[in-house]
Amino acid sequence: MLTEFELIRRFFTRDTRRAVLGVGDDCALLAVPPGRELAVTTDMLVCGVHFFADARPEWLGHKALAVNLSDLAAMGAEPRWALLALALPAADEAWVAAFASGFFSLADRYGVELIGGDTTRGPLNICITAGGELPAGSALRRDGAKAGDEVWVSGTTGDAALALAGLRHEVALAADDAIKLGERLHRPMPRVELGIALRGVASSAIDVSDGLAADLGHVLLRSGCGASVDFASLPRSAELQRCTDHAVATRCAIAGGDDYELCFTAAPEKRGSIAAISADLRLPLTMIGRIDTGQGLRVRDEAGRAVAFDGGGYEHFR
Amino acid sequence: MLTEFELIRRFFTRDTRRAVLGVGDDCALLAVPPGRELAVTTDMLVCGVHFFADARPEWLGHKALAVNLSDLAAMGAEPRWALLALALPAADEAWVAAFASGFFSLADRYGVELIGGDTTRGPLNICITAGGELPAGSALRRDGAKAGDEVWVSGTTGDAALALAGLRHEVALAADDAIKLGERLHRPMPRVELGIALRGVASSAIDVSDGLAADLGHVLLRSGCGASVDFASLPRSAELQRCTDHAVATRCAIAGGDDYELCFTAAPEKRGSIAAISADLRLPLTMIGRIDTGQGLRVRDEAGRAVAFDGGGYEHFR
Repeated sequence: MLTEFELIRRFFTRDTRRAVLGVGDDCALLAVPPGRELAVTTDMLVCGVHFFADARPEWLGHKALAVNLSDLAAMGAEPRWALLALALPAADEAWVAAFASGFFSLADRYGVELIGGDTTRGPLNICITAGGELPAGSALRRDGAKAGDEVWVSGTTGDAALALAGLRHEVALAADDAIKLGERLHRPMPRVELGIALRGVASSAIDVSDGLAADLGHVLLRSGCGASVDFASLPRSAELQRCTDHAVATRCAIAGGDDYELCFTAAPEKRGSIAAISADLRLPLTMIGRIDTGQGLRVRDEAGRAVAFDGGGYEHFR
Repeated sequence: MLTEFELIRRFFTRDTRRAVLGVGDDCALLAVPPGRELAVTTDMLVCGVHFFADARPEWLGHKALAVNLSDLAAMGAEPRWALLALALPAADEAWVAAFASGFFSLADRYGVELIGGDTTRGPLNICITAGGELPAGSALRRDGAKAGDEVWVSGTTGDAALALAGLRHEVALAADDAIKLGERLHRPMPRVELGIALRGVASSAIDVSDGLAADLGHVLLRSGCGASVDFASLPRSAELQRCTDHAVATRCAIAGGDDYELCFTAAPEKRGSIAAISADLRLPLTMIGRIDTGQGLRVRDEAGRAVAFDGGGYEHFR
């Protein structure tokens, strides 16, 4: 059995080029260049709540970092570093090696340095803190939406929730669809490049983790405005479009969590810039509604009727 | 039952004066002044591993932050902000209120702003990330000890370990002693002012969390040197001196963890500065040994014989 210190040395200690000081001291040390701000975020993933006990460790390593990078993306920050706190029932070498492989594979893609952390015994729990940089004053905040702005979402929504519905046998999925949707659930790709590109373009942004309705609701609350969303315009994957359970498909598209797309608002004159970003990143960006002076979110069908759906986002203590 | 969002709003949302943006967005935003570096650290406390399930929540709120501020102190950083990730079995309002009270009481003492976090359902787990600032290049690192430096420790060591030995019925403690020692175990005070004062004075520093022998061992390993420590010189509290179990008292003093004192090294010509710091902070600072060109740590009694003791520090997966 590896000791705590061997485990950290073997799997989690790498040279850092950007940080002043990485793993191995009481703290890590960072320099932030003049004119830049630091964005920091933390997310805790708990076994049995956020993932199944038999979840593949390489997926977990990826996803635990991805959800944090997604928060950085939603602010328009460039990812820089991460701290990894890990409670493990046992020092299972193969498990840790696979976890580290998933973690570093995503970290390397975005130049994220693991600069410190904590390893302890305990029920499986992964808590990552990530830091990123952005030009001072350029952050995409939740409180910037204004009446008249248009509401946009990247990629497609509802895929991760549909994958989960399949795993829970609430819907029957074709094998090919289950694989594609599972990839969205287990290995979400944070929209880092999009967040950076939206600086100066979007008036507000949030990542879709709790579900589109709930997350857009957070923006509306912080911005002090309302929005109407055209349900038919929500971008749906081919897999979601093939789902024949109307109630499940509706719920997934508007209220399904864990997609890690970005939902953002922008003034109508930004349409051209947004189209250019979409083309540049080869990422669909879809206008789904409009901010108004009302309160809260109204979702309408093509006839203008309110669309009913279950779930206003995941609530841990409901 | 409170929802996750109500819980955050009621207990963990406060105005921030220093941070650019605090609780309530995808990330918090921070500015770091020119010429300053940022020190960051994360510590995870797990129920049943780091504390008993019936631990007082106000103590836990204090201690979870204290262990992180202690890491900042060991670098010589001024505490600035914290992120709090919390997994709770249930949204028990009284528990959370008491936890928040312990947390903010210590946070306010050091001007630490809670700028973000994550709240989730799960086995009780507290993961705090803390950030501090210091002038660039002034950090007290583990790798700066040099042969000829003297080894110092603040306050007294072994008290928290003796309190734990009492709770485990390994030793019998007088009621008054148990209360005083329990305070050391449950509500440790991070040596923040000392860490800041030691910038430019100490050649290396670490906080005593795993035990003096183990923590000094980390410094020796990173600094590539050895040390001899004079066992008789270790500063012991009156309570520890009253412990009649010789083996337990020895183990606590040299290898007991959780004291959160600072162990540091300094050149002999710094003795005057160290005495002045001690007087200024009204905190005993005791010279306990010397760094040499050997390997590892040797603990000697007054006759120069090696002192035998159990435990080289807590190891989670032993």
